[in-house]
Amino acid sequence: MILIKTEQLHGVHVALATPIDPTTGDLDPAGLSRLLDRVVGGGIDGICPTGSTGEGPRLTRSQRLTVLQSVRERVGPDRIVVPAASALNLPDAVAEVAELAAAGASAVLLAPSPYYPQAPAEVIAWYRIVAEETGAPLVLYNIPAMTKISIAPGAVAELAALPNVIGIKDSSRDVEYLQQVLRATADANLAVLTGSDTLQLASLVAGAHGMIAAGMNLVPRLGRAVQDAVTAGDLAAAGRAQRELTAIVTACRVGQSPAGWKAALAWAGICSDALVPPAATLPAEVRAELSAVLDGLVPSA
Amino acid sequence: MILIKTEQLHGVHVALATPIDPTTGDLDPAGLSRLLDRVVGGGIDGICPTGSTGEGPRLTRSQRLTVLQSVRERVGPDRIVVPAASALNLPDAVAEVAELAAAGASAVLLAPSPYYPQAPAEVIAWYRIVAEETGAPLVLYNIPAMTKISIAPGAVAELAALPNVIGIKDSSRDVEYLQQVLRATADANLAVLTGSDTLQLASLVAGAHGMIAAGMNLVPRLGRAVQDAVTAGDLAAAGRAQRELTAIVTACRVGQSPAGWKAALAWAGICSDALVPPAATLPAEVRAELSAVLDGLVPSA
Amino acid sequence: MILIKTEQLHGVHVALATPIDPTTGDLDPAGLSRLLDRVVGGGIDGICPTGSTGEGPRLTRSQRLTVLQSVRERVGPDRIVVPAASALNLPDAVAEVAELAAAGASAVLLAPSPYYPQAPAEVIAWYRIVAEETGAPLVLYNIPAMTKISIAPGAVAELAALPNVIGIKDSSRDVEYLQQVLRATADANLAVLTGSDTLQLASLVAGAHGMIAAGMNLVPRLGRAVQDAVTAGDLAAAGRAQRELTAIVTACRVGQSPAGWKAALAWAGICSDALVPPAATLPAEVRAELSAVLDGLVPSA
Amino acid sequence: MILIKTEQLHGVHVALATPIDPTTGDLDPAGLSRLLDRVVGGGIDGICPTGSTGEGPRLTRSQRLTVLQSVRERVGPDRIVVPAASALNLPDAVAEVAELAAAGASAVLLAPSPYYPQAPAEVIAWYRIVAEETGAPLVLYNIPAMTKISIAPGAVAELAALPNVIGIKDSSRDVEYLQQVLRATADANLAVLTGSDTLQLASLVAGAHGMIAAGMNLVPRLGRAVQDAVTAGDLAAAGRAQRELTAIVTACRVGQSPAGWKAALAWAGICSDALVPPAATLPAEVRAELSAVLDGLVPSA
Repeated sequence: MILIKTEQLHGVHVALATPIDPTTGDLDPAGLSRLLDRVVGGGIDGICPTGSTGEGPRLTRSQRLTVLQSVRERVGPDRIVVPAASALNLPDAVAEVAELAAAGASAVLLAPSPYYPQAPAEVIAWYRIVAEETGAPLVLYNIPAMTKISIAPGAVAELAALPNVIGIKDSSRDVEYLQQVLRATADANLAVLTGSDTLQLASLVAGAHGMIAAGMNLVPRLGRAVQDAVTAGDLAAAGRAQRELTAIVTACRVGQSPAGWKAALAWAGICSDALVPPAATLPAEVRAELSAVLDGLVPSA
Repeated sequence: MILIKTEQLHGVHVALATPIDPTTGDLDPAGLSRLLDRVVGGGIDGICPTGSTGEGPRLTRSQRLTVLQSVRERVGPDRIVVPAASALNLPDAVAEVAELAAAGASAVLLAPSPYYPQAPAEVIAWYRIVAEETGAPLVLYNIPAMTKISIAPGAVAELAALPNVIGIKDSSRDVEYLQQVLRATADANLAVLTGSDTLQLASLVAGAHGMIAAGMNLVPRLGRAVQDAVTAGDLAAAGRAQRELTAIVTACRVGQSPAGWKAALAWAGICSDALVPPAATLPAEVRAELSAVLDGLVPSA
Repeated sequence: MILIKTEQLHGVHVALATPIDPTTGDLDPAGLSRLLDRVVGGGIDGICPTGSTGEGPRLTRSQRLTVLQSVRERVGPDRIVVPAASALNLPDAVAEVAELAAAGASAVLLAPSPYYPQAPAEVIAWYRIVAEETGAPLVLYNIPAMTKISIAPGAVAELAALPNVIGIKDSSRDVEYLQQVLRATADANLAVLTGSDTLQLASLVAGAHGMIAAGMNLVPRLGRAVQDAVTAGDLAAAGRAQRELTAIVTACRVGQSPAGWKAALAWAGICSDALVPPAATLPAEVRAELSAVLDGLVPSA
Repeated sequence: MILIKTEQLHGVHVALATPIDPTTGDLDPAGLSRLLDRVVGGGIDGICPTGSTGEGPRLTRSQRLTVLQSVRERVGPDRIVVPAASALNLPDAVAEVAELAAAGASAVLLAPSPYYPQAPAEVIAWYRIVAEETGAPLVLYNIPAMTKISIAPGAVAELAALPNVIGIKDSSRDVEYLQQVLRATADANLAVLTGSDTLQLASLVAGAHGMIAAGMNLVPRLGRAVQDAVTAGDLAAAGRAQRELTAIVTACRVGQSPAGWKAALAWAGICSDALVPPAATLPAEVRAELSAVLDGLVPSA
């Protein structure tokens, strides 16, 4: 399913974790299947594997492709699946975006190269060349905590004019930035999605179209509840669901992300807490504390 | 009017600018009167002079006292007036808070000392000593862009247990922090107010009780509109007012704050664009650009 | 002794700690006398009280004056004594600089106001007005970790043209910045002093004229040794003394400065480890660890 | 030439720029040859291609291999050549390090993966696995401005115990960090090299063993002069050469590095100012200004 209209990106998406076999350090297909069943059952609109939560930058390109193929196979051809590519250089970015699109991606999420600081014109050139050479539907990925670059709102607007740039995932945790992007792209056809579970309600009331976030691995029904309550105009219900979600997300912010999410998924019986090497799992006592907190916060998990 | 209940702090407050005579560099009483008439006429609940927007840290202690006295005289005894003290050391903080309370402050806004980085226990000690020695109603002032310190949510909760700590103004521009404070103080009696015009709606839907912000000098009716729309549950109207407010606030973010606000007030005919020495006014061409933008954004000003 | 020539500032100066009575929280005159005897006996050229190490920003203005008077009385009229003023606003800065000069300061150290970010022209105006209104010899104080402002090298050069701006203390810990200042002021008459014990040798070989630093409270003979070895062209001896000094300074970087220095002075029997309220002393176990390290590093203390 | 002893890394090395054909955006072999002749003629001890200055992270892996092969062919088998690998994930790092070692690298320079923040244990694991799986001589690359990670001095010491970890290039611009590394590895067999032209003298007097830096593309004789003067104990001559070098390096810090270096090499007639796509060359007016400055600073170029 190749995305044609940006409206198809609206809604609640999971920044899918990548279950890892703790013995081999390789992909864990059974864990992935369990995780997909959970998130689809939880009412998620779309699946975004191999982003930051999915440890895409620590996987090889061929592992990322395998993850996409496994996801597509499990969820069927009609579900929105937006994998992230990971590239330091432009030829690699072009090649991987094309490869993922050919392998069943609805669209591809791509961050700026994370090494050098870059001027807005260089970021625009990065995306423009990938967009033009691949023709694949692209979602911009703004995640300055990893790339050191915040894609300037004006650059987002310029890129939104390209026919196959269809969305942006903003993981800046900066609601002012999100508002600036919304204002700069008010007349464009761009899906603006927050990457922060904790800011889902704030983003939606500011005019954002949805969310791609890590918490949806564990508690997809809460993100669904926030989105549906806002659609229904029920601020009180939205606030309650957001506070519940924020409490869980805050608890899982231990260690270097996504170590906390992996431990939470292990707590929930979905997969091991192993990360892609050489990343380290949470220390046992931190994991035990987190489990105790989750016992209190996620009753029915 | 000494505040007894924290609920009295709920609502929309102006971080009052301090009109300055461009010739002498001293206070401009006539400009202050015009500004007060504007904000009260615009539906503001309370007045917070001599904070960051009010250039309190650049005024002398006796000037800050004069501003409070002038404000109280103009707005009468029943209006909420919460001036900010400015102190590097603890004895000065104690003395000024007591002095302001004695001179008619409803409560006093106080930031941590801005020089040294400080551990949470040191910040707690700073506020606890001021609270106990003065007995005055206190509002914590979290503004890490100036003080380098973000008051830890746990410290806020501990301070909220003191009988005369009645509120916090959060100017961190970080909606996650605001949520953490709200969660940490859910069972306390504390008014949580955002200091950011651009985050008024996001803060209110997160559970905040109001706002103290600079934009209220220029367009108090917009902050009033956001607050009232949220109270009425009208998300669409709240979003429209917030977007209008955000556009104006973003336009005024030129130069080092509050230079842009001073230029905007000069544009509106309220007072000179002069700042407290040695701060510099906006360059003429920047001021002209801002005026042109405001001509388009603030039709009825 | 009022400084006339900037050369008089060359050499090794102590950023003097301020001994505090642990019971009252007030100044400890006996501790101060012991400390002065130690540093003068250790070969220090000049004394700089009430800077960051001296907790000047936590003292009241009258306490800072008392410290200066006590120092001057103890060390006599011919020793260089350069106290730091601490002010948020310009009138206070002018008044205190004049007061300190009148009370026996050889020159006065002054940082930019620590609250607002400031453009270079505003920093220049701050110093120019103080210089012109007081006529006192001034030493610029560049300490961005506290003030958030690095005084631009061009601004330093412009200020160096004023007759009574005679030096700069650079506590940026940035050897590149120091080099830029040296280059910008190569033709001016300005004493350029590092504020970092760890960078004494690097600064001197870059062309700096001396140092004002915290480590000189504890081991003045080491700073003396580095300076003298460089003067004698003995790089090997300079390197040995610098490494010894760096090891001690690194050990004392525990807690928020100057808590580690106070604990070290208590270890050396000079004064209590008390800080000016509300600052907290080191936790007992950290202090014990530091003492054990100092037992190994400072044999003859 | 595979490095056996860390002493072979001592001295002055160039962080080699990668000449690019402005028409194709691909490698420019003729420019590379001219550049190599210049740096070897200037007295450089070793060549480090495809690091940050060499735009390695913007090249493909096969382009980086080609650069190494071209360099090795031009400079012969006895010259030290230490290319940088560029990898986001561990399998890619292992594969490229092995490949470069097999293709004639004396050792391989490797930075931590630049995407995720990482704990010291994760950084240690990254290097340990690469060291053990490849057996190739490795040089750690500390460049927090790009990777956001400063390799902890303790981690450096732990890695220095591995037989094939033979050096570190420190591009932190932090002389305190360099001293900490030197102290932590005083008993290890590790070559500690600064990556900053401006800090060559400061680093050498602190005990560093040499430098790998960008300025050596343009003015290798100056880095040579600093190193030789320090060896000869001639501080005055070292200071003069360092000041000359610093002035040139500071002038070339325009645009995002290495855009300024590329413009300087174009000014010197070595190669085009083109960068690897999508990086942008300096604007024409900035380039003209730089050329004018270089006309004054580099008389014989």
